[in-house]
Amino acid sequence: MQACGLIVEYNPFHNGHLYHVNQARKKTSADCIIAVMSGSFLQRGEPAIIDKFHRTKAALESGVDLVLELPYAFAVQSSQLFAKGAVNTLSEIGAESLCFGSESGHISHFISTYKYFKEKESDYQYYLKKALNTGLSFPEASKKAYHNIGLVNMPIDLSKPNNILGFSYVKRILEQKLPIKPLTIKRINSQYHEKEINSSIASATGIRARLFKDHNLYSNDIIGTMPKETITQLQLYKKETTLWHNWEKYFPFVYYRVLTMNAKELADIHGVDEGLEYRILNTVKQATSFNDWLQMIKTKRYTWTRLQRIFVHLLTNTKKSDLNTVHELKSVPYIRLLGATQRGREYLNIRKNDMSIPIISSLSRDQDPLLSIEERATNAYYSILSPHLRNQFHSQELKGPILI
Amino acid sequence: MQACGLIVEYNPFHNGHLYHVNQARKKTSADCIIAVMSGSFLQRGEPAIIDKFHRTKAALESGVDLVLELPYAFAVQSSQLFAKGAVNTLSEIGAESLCFGSESGHISHFISTYKYFKEKESDYQYYLKKALNTGLSFPEASKKAYHNIGLVNMPIDLSKPNNILGFSYVKRILEQKLPIKPLTIKRINSQYHEKEINSSIASATGIRARLFKDHNLYSNDIIGTMPKETITQLQLYKKETTLWHNWEKYFPFVYYRVLTMNAKELADIHGVDEGLEYRILNTVKQATSFNDWLQMIKTKRYTWTRLQRIFVHLLTNTKKSDLNTVHELKSVPYIRLLGATQRGREYLNIRKNDMSIPIISSLSRDQDPLLSIEERATNAYYSILSPHLRNQFHSQELKGPILI
Repeated sequence: MQACGLIVEYNPFHNGHLYHVNQARKKTSADCIIAVMSGSFLQRGEPAIIDKFHRTKAALESGVDLVLELPYAFAVQSSQLFAKGAVNTLSEIGAESLCFGSESGHISHFISTYKYFKEKESDYQYYLKKALNTGLSFPEASKKAYHNIGLVNMPIDLSKPNNILGFSYVKRILEQKLPIKPLTIKRINSQYHEKEINSSIASATGIRARLFKDHNLYSNDIIGTMPKETITQLQLYKKETTLWHNWEKYFPFVYYRVLTMNAKELADIHGVDEGLEYRILNTVKQATSFNDWLQMIKTKRYTWTRLQRIFVHLLTNTKKSDLNTVHELKSVPYIRLLGATQRGREYLNIRKNDMSIPIISSLSRDQDPLLSIEERATNAYYSILSPHLRNQFHSQELKGPILI
Repeated sequence: MQACGLIVEYNPFHNGHLYHVNQARKKTSADCIIAVMSGSFLQRGEPAIIDKFHRTKAALESGVDLVLELPYAFAVQSSQLFAKGAVNTLSEIGAESLCFGSESGHISHFISTYKYFKEKESDYQYYLKKALNTGLSFPEASKKAYHNIGLVNMPIDLSKPNNILGFSYVKRILEQKLPIKPLTIKRINSQYHEKEINSSIASATGIRARLFKDHNLYSNDIIGTMPKETITQLQLYKKETTLWHNWEKYFPFVYYRVLTMNAKELADIHGVDEGLEYRILNTVKQATSFNDWLQMIKTKRYTWTRLQRIFVHLLTNTKKSDLNTVHELKSVPYIRLLGATQRGREYLNIRKNDMSIPIISSLSRDQDPLLSIEERATNAYYSILSPHLRNQFHSQELKGPILI
């Protein structure tokens, strides 16, 4: 059996993803489509709109065979660590290929960009350092350094976030000489940051903006952007919990937490550096919403996405000491299975004896340190629900994967 | 000018306090009545029903001339530290006398009990240690030790919480040879833990139970238990904030906090000892309310009151390292003025030049470590209010005392 891997957040699973799954299957003739998915919190530093299990169901009902959870320690991180966790998960599970979406649609563009980058890497490091010293944020500095070494005019423009992710996947595969073939499919429509819905293959950002504006799923133009299974899961989740998750719902908790912390404790949180603790403490009392607060903190160096990630770490009490080992890990320490189809289970049965790391299907005691972080993040994610619902969702975390 | 001090929580200020104020004035012919009052959280480990400023107003309108805040570091503590903070505050401000309520009503009983205790102190320590080793809580062990040295049959029964407080005041005064005359007035009606209202001088516990049952102030039997000024402040607070504070309103926050902490972090919290961190972590997920949770944790050694105090420290993120200096302090490091009448201000004008510690009237930067703890506790207390209201109450903390 052959498997092709995707790296996704499914927040929510929409028609773009459906297209992606179908193209991946077509391109690779893989029997099994494996999705590595962020769990409770996403790379952009946001809570997932609905929990991982409802998103897993939507994915399984829409052509994905295996859903694996990208550990929090890799998911809520900048592109390099995100790519490391996701690519190595696919490598450990034995996927032959990795298929990601891009504006270019040509994998040769990514590979030549990587080769060019390798040649110029020391120049890049020099310009990066220089740009960082002028007070630019990492993404901005990196963009400038790419520009300096001529990588902005290449077929892959590394100043675009989605290109950066794709480039990071290819880089990880080639640098580690992993036995995975990188593939890319051309994205159609929908820019990464597009907030309006203008086609039936809309971006997740556009869909979310609309969902939180409408608070329902009644209008046809939004229904048209997602497979039936996603609509069902979104509706089901709202019916069960009365809500969809977004940052504002966590504002009281993160506000409360910061107001009972001192600067030293804040500086222990992953990502809180260079005096950011004082900026957070000096603004907290005027903040009337999460959005409001981040607007006050935002600087050239601390971009919105970076701040959101830091606030996820704050919400989940994730400290520098929790994540400082992640850089040193050669690969992921385990694979957590969130869900599988019949075909996914067959694939796992064939693969499992060749694997060098454990497959974990539920949170339990005496676990890997990364799973402890996962559990804490999950606890924080569910904390906005009523006690009864929290218990129900906690027990899903212990019950094991969704099987269809 | 002569001043008589009271040690109170005014939660809320009721007719029993009115009687106490009048008796204190009569007994001492003092020109100025000074109340040392707990701030946001009380000795029994509960949030105050309404904030310190509304309670201050009720007190000032009911015969008290000066309201001073007992620092959190002394207020949310066992009787010995509570007494130390309160008695030394009165001593620093120059009160000639301290008047407390008791069932006995005779100060000679307290003084003879203290003398008897001093004679038998080493025996008491021996029995106390022995009883603690059997797994009893400190209050239970202390009760047993008092019994062993014969102090239960004395005129002051030291197995009763209110007697313990009175005894601790007298002990502090006599041990430190402070120039304060201890006085006591006989309490009428209302046992300390009485939950029913059965007279116009009802206990605070009884009044609170009724307020949270009725959620209003319409019934005549509760109105009859409090001065008009208290009714006004209770109504005003509810009108401004839509609520009265109790533990259940903080349950989501303390639940969230615990679910994002590990055992080691929990053990850093003041009062979390002897493996209590595991008991807290093992019960949290089943808890559906604060009451429910404490019922699950309660043991012989960890009484309800002790646990409530620990949970206040947890809610306010008060660590062992924050409070370990309090034992070594010779006196209180400052006096915080919450409110004053005209007469109170005259008294302060006369006294202030003789004082050896600062009078502080608002929270500010670069402050005493105990004021930082106070600010954090206050932040936690207000965190259940809406952002707009929180700001309003925070600014009252900076604005200075209530003057009438």
